[in-house]
Amino acid sequence: MAEAGTRRRGRGGGGAARRAERTSVRIETAKYIERNIPNFEILTDEALEIIETNAETVLAEIGVNFVNNPAALERWRDAGAEIEGERVRIPRGLARKLCETAPSSYTQHARNPEKSVVIGGKTLVCAPVYGPPFVRDAAGGRRYATMADFETFVKLGYMSKWLHHSGGTVCEPTDVPVNKRHLDMLLAHMTLSDKPFMGSVTEPSRARDSVDMCEILFGRDFVAENTVMTSLININSPMTFDDVMMGALEVYAEAGQASIVSPFIVGGAMAPVSVAGTLTQVLAEVLAGIAYSQLVRPGAPVIFGAFVTSIDMNSGAPTFGTPEASQILYGAGQLARRMGLPFRSGGGLCASKLPDAQAAYETTHTLNAALMGGVNFMLHACGWLEGGLVSSFEKFVMDADQLGVLHRLAQGVAFDESAQAMDAIAEVGPGGHYLGCAHTQANFKTAFWRSEVLDYRPFETWDEAGAPDTQALAARRVEYLLANYQQPALDPAIAEALAAYVAEKKASMPDAFM
Amino acid sequence: MAEAGTRRRGRGGGGAARRAERTSVRIETAKYIERNIPNFEILTDEALEIIETNAETVLAEIGVNFVNNPAALERWRDAGAEIEGERVRIPRGLARKLCETAPSSYTQHARNPEKSVVIGGKTLVCAPVYGPPFVRDAAGGRRYATMADFETFVKLGYMSKWLHHSGGTVCEPTDVPVNKRHLDMLLAHMTLSDKPFMGSVTEPSRARDSVDMCEILFGRDFVAENTVMTSLININSPMTFDDVMMGALEVYAEAGQASIVSPFIVGGAMAPVSVAGTLTQVLAEVLAGIAYSQLVRPGAPVIFGAFVTSIDMNSGAPTFGTPEASQILYGAGQLARRMGLPFRSGGGLCASKLPDAQAAYETTHTLNAALMGGVNFMLHACGWLEGGLVSSFEKFVMDADQLGVLHRLAQGVAFDESAQAMDAIAEVGPGGHYLGCAHTQANFKTAFWRSEVLDYRPFETWDEAGAPDTQALAARRVEYLLANYQQPALDPAIAEALAAYVAEKKASMPDAFM
Repeated sequence: MAEAGTRRRGRGGGGAARRAERTSVRIETAKYIERNIPNFEILTDEALEIIETNAETVLAEIGVNFVNNPAALERWRDAGAEIEGERVRIPRGLARKLCETAPSSYTQHARNPEKSVVIGGKTLVCAPVYGPPFVRDAAGGRRYATMADFETFVKLGYMSKWLHHSGGTVCEPTDVPVNKRHLDMLLAHMTLSDKPFMGSVTEPSRARDSVDMCEILFGRDFVAENTVMTSLININSPMTFDDVMMGALEVYAEAGQASIVSPFIVGGAMAPVSVAGTLTQVLAEVLAGIAYSQLVRPGAPVIFGAFVTSIDMNSGAPTFGTPEASQILYGAGQLARRMGLPFRSGGGLCASKLPDAQAAYETTHTLNAALMGGVNFMLHACGWLEGGLVSSFEKFVMDADQLGVLHRLAQGVAFDESAQAMDAIAEVGPGGHYLGCAHTQANFKTAFWRSEVLDYRPFETWDEAGAPDTQALAARRVEYLLANYQQPALDPAIAEALAAYVAEKKASMPDAFM
Repeated sequence: MAEAGTRRRGRGGGGAARRAERTSVRIETAKYIERNIPNFEILTDEALEIIETNAETVLAEIGVNFVNNPAALERWRDAGAEIEGERVRIPRGLARKLCETAPSSYTQHARNPEKSVVIGGKTLVCAPVYGPPFVRDAAGGRRYATMADFETFVKLGYMSKWLHHSGGTVCEPTDVPVNKRHLDMLLAHMTLSDKPFMGSVTEPSRARDSVDMCEILFGRDFVAENTVMTSLININSPMTFDDVMMGALEVYAEAGQASIVSPFIVGGAMAPVSVAGTLTQVLAEVLAGIAYSQLVRPGAPVIFGAFVTSIDMNSGAPTFGTPEASQILYGAGQLARRMGLPFRSGGGLCASKLPDAQAAYETTHTLNAALMGGVNFMLHACGWLEGGLVSSFEKFVMDADQLGVLHRLAQGVAFDESAQAMDAIAEVGPGGHYLGCAHTQANFKTAFWRSEVLDYRPFETWDEAGAPDTQALAARRVEYLLANYQQPALDPAIAEALAAYVAEKKASMPDAFM
């Protein structure tokens, strides 16, 4: 991949790139959310210490499995763990000690530097839904996702003001062979958007392809010294680290690229049915996973992940937006902060099959918990439907709009003289009204967050307009955004090199559909 | 009304009452929510002190108006306020001092003692929507509310496990004359439900009727010594206390009955467009109103109310579930706690015309803020639609179901040995699953909150069942609850006395429709 990397001539270099930039439309994107509000701390210090002690017990006495990965076992043995077959027992304190080299926050660079994000501390970065094999829209219903759908979602993400990150597998492009689709997906993120994105994790070789393509896009030197991808490494709960995910983690850690080390837990099936028990397992798994990332490369950027839902014990189906899931989110956030690590959880999660009230109840519980619980990276922030089986176009824009609520809420409350508004209260006085007063005139345009999807019209006007429900309003918003989409400028030489890399890679292997 | 009161022979007295109780079906109602979680404190102490200082300035320098109420002006003059026309200027510290006699919490008794509620401290009591002139259901759309609708809502409230309170004007029965409908509404709450309820506030005489009817229901002595109603006294913001609402407040305070003293603010119209300015006005208004209640009767139970929404500055329409509304709720909760008073705010508020995703986004933001913000009495907890113009049958059961999420969330996280689940983690081990383990078997039935409205079925099953959206699911739930409704037992002598009181009152005056 060396020849691809060397084609890079620095950001925005070349006359063609300059010409492209001049003709591009500027799409507004909010900077990541920065919290001026406290985090919600649901657990006492005593409870947190119980979990931390229990997690160390789990690691020391039960241990975790690193499957099909002799090199990992070797690294653990060298670090002082006890190895028995594929089981790794980690002495008390060792994993936590190893985690200390992980940074408390990092910058993930976007190709448009204005869209680079800081992940950690008081920030919250929102990325769209990840992984669904199906898509749904109001017109066509539910069907298998295609690469064309994928591109549409990337465009919608690019056009969404409150969405900071282009994400990764916004849907599975099932019309592209499994072993090649990561190339098309990365190309779409790199060329149809200028927001930060995620790399492939489905094979270590695909993680390497992701790094290669980033070297074309950003330049090899830049990638060597900076984080340009944040990728999702799931742990097979309970306590199993498979070679595919760990292989991808190794690639990314070695390249200084960020990984979310995330238990994926359906509570009751993959963890105990209690909140305290689940938090213990989450912490043990994250400690082991992040410690391992630091064994691969001390200082590699990582995120403490916790994707936890519960199971409906009647039907066995996963549920979302439940109180137990919120409690786990809050508790995991506290555990992450005590480790000084960025935290990933939350999202617009729901079980509903439609972008209806059920979807919104479930989604909003989770979005609120994510904001209040100190989440730094929120995957699935918009577009998630049906337990993650479906990416919904309408829900994508509905949720993305709601992220504006979180932005405003996180800003906290201003207390300068103008915000105190004592002159206005005196001017208006008892029985008056504020619509015309000087303070209102000076501030009304920015005073209140306003949805760009929801309907505030009076009943009669709305009824005459066909009484659209939220899905119908959102379908129009999707149309509007796509009609106004303009591709962000990219140096044509880079675009060409990326396309050539993808073509060459695809030609080098037979199609695989499993 | 003395003769009515004397008919009362103590709770559950009489053979007929005993017979009625034996045949009654026991409907499960959760005790009010008790928080084992902290409140969310969005404002610093410094910010709170600024608001408190500014509110005292508003009261001392601008003052408030008590309209058409010479007796109120006299009370204020005697207490040390400066009176100028109808304007009352309250010296710094006086209102706050007067508020000190108000109790920090109180019990509102229900006729079924198991359903009495404690309001204040760590509790949250949920009551349904209040005030809409319209109703909506999936089958019939939007139409003017009738007394039959009112009764249906009272029945649904009685059947709703997570709803603690029967409320007040769950919809306006527009087919009953304005001057008589309070009698029918009270009779419905008293006979169709056994949960606590609210009194009439639309005329001081109707407040007196409410007290009279309670004396029939509970016995005169009981009412003299106990709180059996919590009623809604709105302030005409900015800073105006009209004689109708204050007249009702006077009746209730004198009778030892509870009042919610609540600014009703559409931000930008009735208060400044800033959060800090609105909080200042809210505090000034509540200080004046609650101080006045204590001038009427020291120790009268009251609630610090804050109903605040913002205006859509494009259309002038009120909006709900906005971040500014949540910020005001959080801040007002802190102010109420610093005064040691019960706090009312929140609810399932929304602007949406349909029980769709918009309604649920808006509702869920507010429900979460209410739980986290320390609300003690949540009016409009279920059934609210279209900015409070519409009571929706489907949304009533949808929201009432969501209150279960708040219940569970408020319980906090258990940390006993069973909850820690260390045995389960050891039993299952890496790569295993928890479905069959002993800990899961022992705990799965109560481990997770489960909706009784939302759909968790797999896509195929749900699709074959007609792919119902949440509104359709809720319509079935409404049918189910009404089909299973059985009137709670009531001593027939009391029921008869109540009916006679209502008939007599109605016959004593001509119909009025304005």
